[in-house]
Amino acid sequence: MNPTKDLPHFPPLTSEREPTYERGYWREELTLAFRNRGMPLEALRYSTTPTGLHFLLTHFDIPAGDVVSWRLEVGGLVERPLTLRVADLEARPRVTRRVTMECAGNGRGLLHPRPLSQPWLQEAIGTAEWTGTPLAGILEEASSRPGAIDVVFTGADAGMEANQVQRYQRSMKLGEALRDDILLAYQMNGEDLPPQHGGPVRLIVPGWYGMASVKWLVSINVTDRPFDGHYMVGTYRYSKLKGELGEPVTHQRVRALMIPPGIPDFFTRTRLVEAGLVKLEGRAWAGRRGVGRVEISTDAGKSFADARLEPPNDPCCWQAWSFDWDARPGRTTLIVRGTDSEGEAQPLETFWTYRGLGNNVAQRVEVVVG
Amino acid sequence: MNPTKDLPHFPPLTSEREPTYERGYWREELTLAFRNRGMPLEALRYSTTPTGLHFLLTHFDIPAGDVVSWRLEVGGLVERPLTLRVADLEARPRVTRRVTMECAGNGRGLLHPRPLSQPWLQEAIGTAEWTGTPLAGILEEASSRPGAIDVVFTGADAGMEANQVQRYQRSMKLGEALRDDILLAYQMNGEDLPPQHGGPVRLIVPGWYGMASVKWLVSINVTDRPFDGHYMVGTYRYSKLKGELGEPVTHQRVRALMIPPGIPDFFTRTRLVEAGLVKLEGRAWAGRRGVGRVEISTDAGKSFADARLEPPNDPCCWQAWSFDWDARPGRTTLIVRGTDSEGEAQPLETFWTYRGLGNNVAQRVEVVVG
Repeated sequence: MNPTKDLPHFPPLTSEREPTYERGYWREELTLAFRNRGMPLEALRYSTTPTGLHFLLTHFDIPAGDVVSWRLEVGGLVERPLTLRVADLEARPRVTRRVTMECAGNGRGLLHPRPLSQPWLQEAIGTAEWTGTPLAGILEEASSRPGAIDVVFTGADAGMEANQVQRYQRSMKLGEALRDDILLAYQMNGEDLPPQHGGPVRLIVPGWYGMASVKWLVSINVTDRPFDGHYMVGTYRYSKLKGELGEPVTHQRVRALMIPPGIPDFFTRTRLVEAGLVKLEGRAWAGRRGVGRVEISTDAGKSFADARLEPPNDPCCWQAWSFDWDARPGRTTLIVRGTDSEGEAQPLETFWTYRGLGNNVAQRVEVVVG
Repeated sequence: MNPTKDLPHFPPLTSEREPTYERGYWREELTLAFRNRGMPLEALRYSTTPTGLHFLLTHFDIPAGDVVSWRLEVGGLVERPLTLRVADLEARPRVTRRVTMECAGNGRGLLHPRPLSQPWLQEAIGTAEWTGTPLAGILEEASSRPGAIDVVFTGADAGMEANQVQRYQRSMKLGEALRDDILLAYQMNGEDLPPQHGGPVRLIVPGWYGMASVKWLVSINVTDRPFDGHYMVGTYRYSKLKGELGEPVTHQRVRALMIPPGIPDFFTRTRLVEAGLVKLEGRAWAGRRGVGRVEISTDAGKSFADARLEPPNDPCCWQAWSFDWDARPGRTTLIVRGTDSEGEAQPLETFWTYRGLGNNVAQRVEVVVG
């Protein structure tokens, strides 16, 4: 199967832009910022994010999905190619998983120099209940043939990136794809998967950054060699220089975020907090590793103290934390920093890569206590 | 009633920033851009916008609304003050209206110099079915006393703006507030009003820009003099200079938008279109006036031709339009321009005001035909 066969051919549109030291933001970034929705951080109050507040990242356009005509083709190096309708998936074993999802580009807008792409600050997150059928069952039914090593997932969304017209495509190693926690999801928070979240059907890969959870899934193709599409080798890599391949971006790195306390100033978003005991609250996650520790600084990083961390309710899902702060009048910077179960902590300085991926710098919140 | 009585007091935080000629975008603008969600323009394909794609503008934080404890106080210059629960509203006459809503700041990000605030490009729009009970019935039951001229609506959301700690408050003249199309809405698209759209209860004022449709409504106060709160006199005014009061921003101005044709380039959002017959489609609205005409230019504004315009299905709701374009290879700029029923057309140049309000400049879409 060639999922790009019905796409038009276009010559390269632009040469790719270099990262820039420009302090301002570009029109292109702003256009992306308005298409792609962040979760306002006060929504950390919800253990499951309301559907309309979950982050959204769409590379191209949201396709006009249609439950009736939608088909998922499963093919390539398999004994039994399959063509599945939504109803076929619904008739299979049904699983619901609560999963924290995060864009790999979360934090990019905090970098200097800033790689030009979707300029997320720290809000490309959300936790939803995804309902679907395990991918493993589908792959087992199709039954891979000897030599199969990779599985390519193709979405219906198409456009030009890196000067190539293409659909969004990602792959996983066959062993990884057979994990029992990966879903072909057709519901989000108990309702039909809405178009903007990948409806009618998307992949959900718990613990990985969001790029693995391919939306608008139309094809699963088993292959005998590693897939080298743009979203595997041209981006989603921790490269430090243009042209350097770099290590692949895979699992979520640890991150803790706080609900900004008090009330905001409209434009600067500085927080205004009344002096006295303030309960700081938020959530933290670390993909499959889970969170080991959350620390708070109320003095701009001079000192840190441990927050109370709730145990996880679900694997690959955020955990609540809280911290009692005796807020004294004046201006300060609050910092929250998570450490995963293997001892890896969020950095206090930004983590720079050429594509601006995996920047899990600790959150800072400017506060005036009055 | 004094809806700010339980808010903390804080000294001014910053002097207000001047509009700037800076070409870049500021961190503060980007923070707002990620909190406040635009409607991706391909969602113009839906006559009613899916809830999660409707635009969102939140001045402060989304309050933690709660249907059980929520109360609406109706008071001031009335014979019978009322305290209403959600169930009280649900027990009253129930009306559903399909309404196109638009932020008055839509288009601000296209201005030079750009007033610093939420930097919308052209996506601060959406159309939803709002269900609630007419405001007029509530006001009639409360029965205004002689001398009543203004009605002040207060939301639960609070923060600092223009260096004052305040709740979001807007007023309408009593005669306007008694119009039969204004709703106290508790449902959106057939479901409980979600927190980010003003739940449990919000005002819906068809035909006005969005600032009139106060979210998280907790108080309605009838007064004997015009309300002069910040959101009536400090902004939502067509002033050309700092300190100039300017005319109030009220009804929606005409705007037509198109679904960007073809497929996008990821970063520039330039559209790639195959040569041949292309059906351009979109929607247009003009508040209470309705749309008289939609014109398309396929040659960057050298010439315009009329699009087919569908009649309106509902008052104060967008109307579909379409246009057959014989796309020839090359690069061009498409422009769509609406004219309202009274002959007022969208300008081809931006409409600049000090606060960046009401900029209904015609949409331009860069296209490569290949």
